[in-house]
Amino acid sequence: MYNLGDICILLLIGLSLQNLENGGHKKLPCRPSKFLFYLHNTVYNPVVDNQDYFNSIYGLPPNISFPNPFSFGVMNTFEDPLTAGPSSSSTSLGKAQGFYVLNSFTEFTLFHLFTANITEGDFKGTIDIFGQLREVDPIRYLTVVGGTGAFLGARGLASSTLVNIDHTPPAKWTLSFELDLYY
Amino acid sequence: MYNLGDICILLLIGLSLQNLENGGHKKLPCRPSKFLFYLHNTVYNPVVDNQDYFNSIYGLPPNISFPNPFSFGVMNTFEDPLTAGPSSSSTSLGKAQGFYVLNSFTEFTLFHLFTANITEGDFKGTIDIFGQLREVDPIRYLTVVGGTGAFLGARGLASSTLVNIDHTPPAKWTLSFELDLYY
Amino acid sequence: MYNLGDICILLLIGLSLQNLENGGHKKLPCRPSKFLFYLHNTVYNPVVDNQDYFNSIYGLPPNISFPNPFSFGVMNTFEDPLTAGPSSSSTSLGKAQGFYVLNSFTEFTLFHLFTANITEGDFKGTIDIFGQLREVDPIRYLTVVGGTGAFLGARGLASSTLVNIDHTPPAKWTLSFELDLYY
Repeated sequence: MYNLGDICILLLIGLSLQNLENGGHKKLPCRPSKFLFYLHNTVYNPVVDNQDYFNSIYGLPPNISFPNPFSFGVMNTFEDPLTAGPSSSSTSLGKAQGFYVLNSFTEFTLFHLFTANITEGDFKGTIDIFGQLREVDPIRYLTVVGGTGAFLGARGLASSTLVNIDHTPPAKWTLSFELDLYY
Repeated sequence: MYNLGDICILLLIGLSLQNLENGGHKKLPCRPSKFLFYLHNTVYNPVVDNQDYFNSIYGLPPNISFPNPFSFGVMNTFEDPLTAGPSSSSTSLGKAQGFYVLNSFTEFTLFHLFTANITEGDFKGTIDIFGQLREVDPIRYLTVVGGTGAFLGARGLASSTLVNIDHTPPAKWTLSFELDLYY
Repeated sequence: MYNLGDICILLLIGLSLQNLENGGHKKLPCRPSKFLFYLHNTVYNPVVDNQDYFNSIYGLPPNISFPNPFSFGVMNTFEDPLTAGPSSSSTSLGKAQGFYVLNSFTEFTLFHLFTANITEGDFKGTIDIFGQLREVDPIRYLTVVGGTGAFLGARGLASSTLVNIDHTPPAKWTLSFELDLYY
């Protein structure tokens, strides 16, 4: 991806293990400084009972008797396919697993905590993501707080946009995640 | 805040993008190395039914038949105002959104995962916080695991104290968070 | 541990505070670059009602009517003893507190978010861990995203293996966590 894979392999040999061993600050110029994936989520909806095609399920709501229009306090656990392009049929990269908690009472805000498991392509490993998707923001800024494999020691910025959404039950959407990574 | 805002703007221009681009270790001396906020939480309590003034709601407890005096396994989702001073009427800085899970069976321990959304003041951005508030500790040490905007790439220590607590239903409290940040 | 404790104390004096103050990149060669602990978990199971010996409790499952063989979307909160050796009766190091969410519909995958509270031994502090234990992987790679005390500013790799598991209710298991840390 980004043509970094080829030029980096030789440099990485010998560097990666040393850097981890000596506990010093790692300088691995070849790990990807940019990485892009698309996440596709289809929510399970009991009304249409799409038990054959869903990626995520909501947990039980809190026991309150007043309206909760933005599902404050509800968790959604997901296992979502990741692709290299915006279409769900584009090249597969792996899957994202984790959950989000709806954490606003006045707007849709999805606090995500998940691991992107990248199992295909030039860079294989995991990327840990922490942060909010606020529906009102055109670009949502989350953080990369860690990684393993090709992303060992990754940190950085995850800029996410809503590529498309279909509210027809079951709700389904695609998000882009453009990562700016450093190590 | 801390008079860093003014002297840093010029230096930041030109530095911030470069640092992210080259993937090297970022040195941005102008981002705040210290940051302080106060978090104000009022729990929703069905007994007094304070549906007009709350910031957080407990999820459903686990299905156990024996006493659970410290609400082990219960999650609380919050959307709490943040201020620059200890009073909830002091200058607003934004809001904290996330949740905590009560994770001790023998004492009150609140495992917090949240984003501080700083939308007002000299530094705007998000700060990601991970860690425990153990009621028995006078100072509770949590960690900053990431940030965006003025806090892009932040890491560090979050030292938190209980400023005050009112157990009269609905329970309400104020916490201070003093952050020591590096980038 | 690893004989680093003794030789580091002198160097740390004077270094640690300075590094945090100047906001620069910290170089504290004496903090542990490796750390090992074993985590022992016994699940509460209502069938055998082991209310006198458990460390973790499952939350309520999502409200779905179809089979959920891998407990997708269920959270388990834990407060688990940590030891220096694989036996639960070996030297105590403290306890791990946090939770995991089962986040696969096709296999056992436990997404862990927890703090290792190390209260005994040469290094005292907290270590924040983020990542998945996929049952199919012989070694599970998680990340260290932060720390406090002797682990202040820690990041790194947590390699975990299943040391043993006993499926007889209540289920109980021991996991090793070998940490490669940098600061």
